Amino acid sequence: MKTQEGSTPVAHTVVTFEDTFWAPRLRTLREQTLPFIYAQMQQDGHFSNFHEQWQPGRSPTPYVFWESDLSKWIEAASYSLATHPDPHLEALVDEGVAFLVALQQPDGYLNLWFTRFEPEKRWTNLRDWHELYCAGHLIEAAVAHFQATGKRTLLDAACRYADYIATVFGAEEGKRRGYCGHEEIELALVKLYHVTGEPRYLRLCQYFVEERGRQPHYFDIEARARGEDPAAFWARTYEYNQSHRPVREQNEVVGHAVRAMYLYSALADLARELHDDSLSRTCERLWRHLTSRRLYVTGGLGSSAANEGLTADYDLPNAAAYAETCAAIGLVLWNHRLLQLETDHRYADLLERALYNGVLSALALDGKAFFYENPLESRGDHHRSPWFRCACCPPNIARLLASLGQYVYGVNESEVMVHLYVQSTSSLSVAGQKVAFRQETRYPWEGLVRLHLEMEQPAEFALNLRIPGWCRQARLDVNGEELPIEQYVRKGYARIARRWQSGDTITLDLPMPVERVYAHPDLVEDNGRVALQRGPLVYCLEGADNDVPLHRIRLASDAELESHFEPDLLGGVAVIEGQASALETADWDDTLYRTTPPERRAHRLVAIPYYAWDQRAPGEMSVWIRQEEK
Amino acid sequence: MKTQEGSTPVAHTVVTFEDTFWAPRLRTLREQTLPFIYAQMQQDGHFSNFHEQWQPGRSPTPYVFWESDLSKWIEAASYSLATHPDPHLEALVDEGVAFLVALQQPDGYLNLWFTRFEPEKRWTNLRDWHELYCAGHLIEAAVAHFQATGKRTLLDAACRYADYIATVFGAEEGKRRGYCGHEEIELALVKLYHVTGEPRYLRLCQYFVEERGRQPHYFDIEARARGEDPAAFWARTYEYNQSHRPVREQNEVVGHAVRAMYLYSALADLARELHDDSLSRTCERLWRHLTSRRLYVTGGLGSSAANEGLTADYDLPNAAAYAETCAAIGLVLWNHRLLQLETDHRYADLLERALYNGVLSALALDGKAFFYENPLESRGDHHRSPWFRCACCPPNIARLLASLGQYVYGVNESEVMVHLYVQSTSSLSVAGQKVAFRQETRYPWEGLVRLHLEMEQPAEFALNLRIPGWCRQARLDVNGEELPIEQYVRKGYARIARRWQSGDTITLDLPMPVERVYAHPDLVEDNGRVALQRGPLVYCLEGADNDVPLHRIRLASDAELESHFEPDLLGGVAVIEGQASALETADWDDTLYRTTPPERRAHRLVAIPYYAWDQRAPGEMSVWIRQEEK
Repeated sequence: MKTQEGSTPVAHTVVTFEDTFWAPRLRTLREQTLPFIYAQMQQDGHFSNFHEQWQPGRSPTPYVFWESDLSKWIEAASYSLATHPDPHLEALVDEGVAFLVALQQPDGYLNLWFTRFEPEKRWTNLRDWHELYCAGHLIEAAVAHFQATGKRTLLDAACRYADYIATVFGAEEGKRRGYCGHEEIELALVKLYHVTGEPRYLRLCQYFVEERGRQPHYFDIEARARGEDPAAFWARTYEYNQSHRPVREQNEVVGHAVRAMYLYSALADLARELHDDSLSRTCERLWRHLTSRRLYVTGGLGSSAANEGLTADYDLPNAAAYAETCAAIGLVLWNHRLLQLETDHRYADLLERALYNGVLSALALDGKAFFYENPLESRGDHHRSPWFRCACCPPNIARLLASLGQYVYGVNESEVMVHLYVQSTSSLSVAGQKVAFRQETRYPWEGLVRLHLEMEQPAEFALNLRIPGWCRQARLDVNGEELPIEQYVRKGYARIARRWQSGDTITLDLPMPVERVYAHPDLVEDNGRVALQRGPLVYCLEGADNDVPLHRIRLASDAELESHFEPDLLGGVAVIEGQASALETADWDDTLYRTTPPERRAHRLVAIPYYAWDQRAPGEMSVWIRQEEK
Repeated sequence: MKTQEGSTPVAHTVVTFEDTFWAPRLRTLREQTLPFIYAQMQQDGHFSNFHEQWQPGRSPTPYVFWESDLSKWIEAASYSLATHPDPHLEALVDEGVAFLVALQQPDGYLNLWFTRFEPEKRWTNLRDWHELYCAGHLIEAAVAHFQATGKRTLLDAACRYADYIATVFGAEEGKRRGYCGHEEIELALVKLYHVTGEPRYLRLCQYFVEERGRQPHYFDIEARARGEDPAAFWARTYEYNQSHRPVREQNEVVGHAVRAMYLYSALADLARELHDDSLSRTCERLWRHLTSRRLYVTGGLGSSAANEGLTADYDLPNAAAYAETCAAIGLVLWNHRLLQLETDHRYADLLERALYNGVLSALALDGKAFFYENPLESRGDHHRSPWFRCACCPPNIARLLASLGQYVYGVNESEVMVHLYVQSTSSLSVAGQKVAFRQETRYPWEGLVRLHLEMEQPAEFALNLRIPGWCRQARLDVNGEELPIEQYVRKGYARIARRWQSGDTITLDLPMPVERVYAHPDLVEDNGRVALQRGPLVYCLEGADNDVPLHRIRLASDAELESHFEPDLLGGVAVIEGQASALETADWDDTLYRTTPPERRAHRLVAIPYYAWDQRAPGEMSVWIRQEEK
């Protein structure tokens, strides 16, 4: 049996969500979040005449990378227009596009800050000033905008800009051997290559990736040219931007978490485009390091606010977690690319973990408030905010969710991969014809999935169904006939190669018992604690459901935990309940230390999905629950 | 039965230590620590010609309060000279005294910094610049020096200085209504009152205490006079120096921990001298708050380096504990004064807890290295240092230990209080004659104490023997006849009033089983953990004795723990051993999270007294041990 290998994601427009989980969220995204973000950007002067009038010293001071928020919003809005045409939204997009395009200089340069405010500083500090990062988001916006609307305005400007960039940077004599301190343009150039078919964009991406971390170090040279001591770099180490060594020599996930995820995404892109095994192996090493040492159970990453990033192995504090929304989004982007290289459920599992937990937590149910940091514990003082001066996260989650359809299926010549389960309809091209897929499921609340196929003619192809790592007793049948699933599974996908015909129905049952998750003994903060997980969802305790301080709660290791759906709670969630105990304080009076252990009283523990926290009365939250052995 | 009420401490010279615990330490103090501290002060230019030559910008920059280190050293050395004459040490003391006395100005002012460097700034910033604090230590040194040597040089200078201070500060018209940001002079003035018999020094102390925290706030007035905005105070709140409200209105232990302890010591002094119940009640409120909410089990206090002090109730982090040596010393000073007000074992228990744990930990066995902070957990990177630029702690622990004898007994007209147990001989005046006391005991390693009395004539007096709070099964006999102890104990002291005669022997047995100590459930860091204690000693785990990372160790709640003495370990210590387990990591491979709990393997747990840690190979330390319920 030929193995499935990689696949190409479907266009996000292919999947029509008909479920009660994502479909309402995507409607909120379209109807609330996208206009809301646009209004926020206008209000704090992200673009338009604020920038024409702004002078140094005036408030709010723009960030050098504010332009990228607009680009990400155009990208997100374009994805939305592609599935849900909306003249009002399209008018806003046109306005944003016109604003950006008008900035383009005769030589092709296109950057807000270094055109309006500091033109003399163009290309003088790639290390800190996000100049090529902004170019990257502009390009991603241009590609999405063209694909959604067929309009070439922004795409042409982006191509001219990319062509100009290629005249400035490169390994050739006379060019600067620079690359961006914040990776992003690398990803964008691969997309530009795909949409234009121009290999020069792929080559420019390759140059940026290959040059990174080489000696003599570009950021040293550049700092000296500015009259600065390179050693005075505020972040103290080039690990911060993953330029501490050439990319193929990187073995550990380090530095700023978003930058790391974007770089690794570019490595996976290039590995696929160039069939470069050394880059695949680099990704594999970094993936193992991240997932075995530095990843939160929510799919969040980045333990420290100091570098917005990674620290040391097993250093994963809960309350102090940075776990930036954009880093979890970056993890989705990277794992989606790894999944294209190799159909292995590990990547889809991690994508799903990040998506349903560390990413989704960032967005309020009403679509108009966001987390920047996503800690795993709170004393009740961490809340979503309508906006941030550094507003990278809101438009980033918007572009991810607006294009969510692309993550559901992958295809290659003769195979279809089902990566995510969601009630939906889709029409995929496989084996030379269109095949309609209809998923019937209550996922993520229940694990039963019925997949119905419709097609003109019977067709020979292989269907690969992901068996999530969290599921240990999956059952599979085709048209009512059970298949011995273990004979079909490879790397976590059940592959059914046969001649399919209209009306075929595949039933996949993925039981979702409540699971206790234990952390490695050296993850000190989670020592003696468990996290609760059900299906793809990580749970947490919240003060609103538990009337004692959360640190007093003890869950016995043999306590039964049950789950039931609460349709009116937090947009409809399955809660987990179980009998636990709470340490008693009434008999302590003024005692701080004593020689008898605390008494316990019964406590009915209630946990909700982590993504849904902080949407009731402010209060404590904790993912990791103290467990007592019996 | 008349109750014992308060007592006066004996002079430290009265007690001759003959034990194997303190006696060798006091010898090391005399022979090593005192000369060593003097040499360190000379080396980094604390006094002598360094100060004559020092100019702003030169290194090391003196602290404004460096002079106080010399004063504290003179005080410590004087205590030592009083019990162990030493011409070489006396010559050094004379040198230090001459240096200080030569600084005195015609008006009586005596301060190094504001004479040599910034005379124009005299009395311009009592809030921050320790000017009266330095005066306090000068006075304490003067009192000790006079008592030890009979020399009046420093005492006369101190009296002139105090008299001058009284012309500057006071409630009377024309005087400044100031007081020091760092309390200390208050204590010193009470001592000066005692040694001189001059009530004006007590009145000055009373003024400083009464004025503190009144409105209009002196530190506001003073800041405005410097042209500063009072609200710009770097510490942000007058809680920092306990001047946030008048002292009698203070209900919570707040701010800089050493300052708090020194102020409360002065409150206790004044309560006793003035028979002021409102001050006793204030002390009692503050004592309850400290001991029920903000005290480490080691007798350390101060949770944060930011304010070198107290933070919030139950906020007692272990690794990040500040627990400054001087704060634990201050706790000894305060509780010693409370014990003088009222013979209650709570005060002696706390004095003992701080002394044997949070204070003693600060001093290396060789007497030549010191902790400034005394955390309850370490990853192996916290070590004693031979010196600090801010060197308050080394001479402070020296003066405490050099005068240790004063803490052993208290007396009043017809009663003797035995506060501490230690193999020693003493001669006390009670009931009109000298009574020789000889304690035979292996305390703190064993709890059996035999007290032998010798005297010229039989005498009627009450002997009050402290029954420590950690002991629940004390036994007592007199001349072989057991007494029903519960009938004799009041506030933790067994009072035996009778006609005593030579040869009388009291046997007190204080069994010392290994005890598990539990913290209040809201002390989150210690949740699910136990500390081990035996007698007055708190124990800790150290990497040197336990070959696994300490966070992996689990102690079962029913595990037997035994103790035995190791004469060759760390100067001779009783270690605690017991069967525990350690979480296994070998089977985790690259797994960070999994659904099965960690396996355990057997681990023989070994604990040593906390005070003795960090004297072998650098490694982890932890007081609080993770416990599992059975």
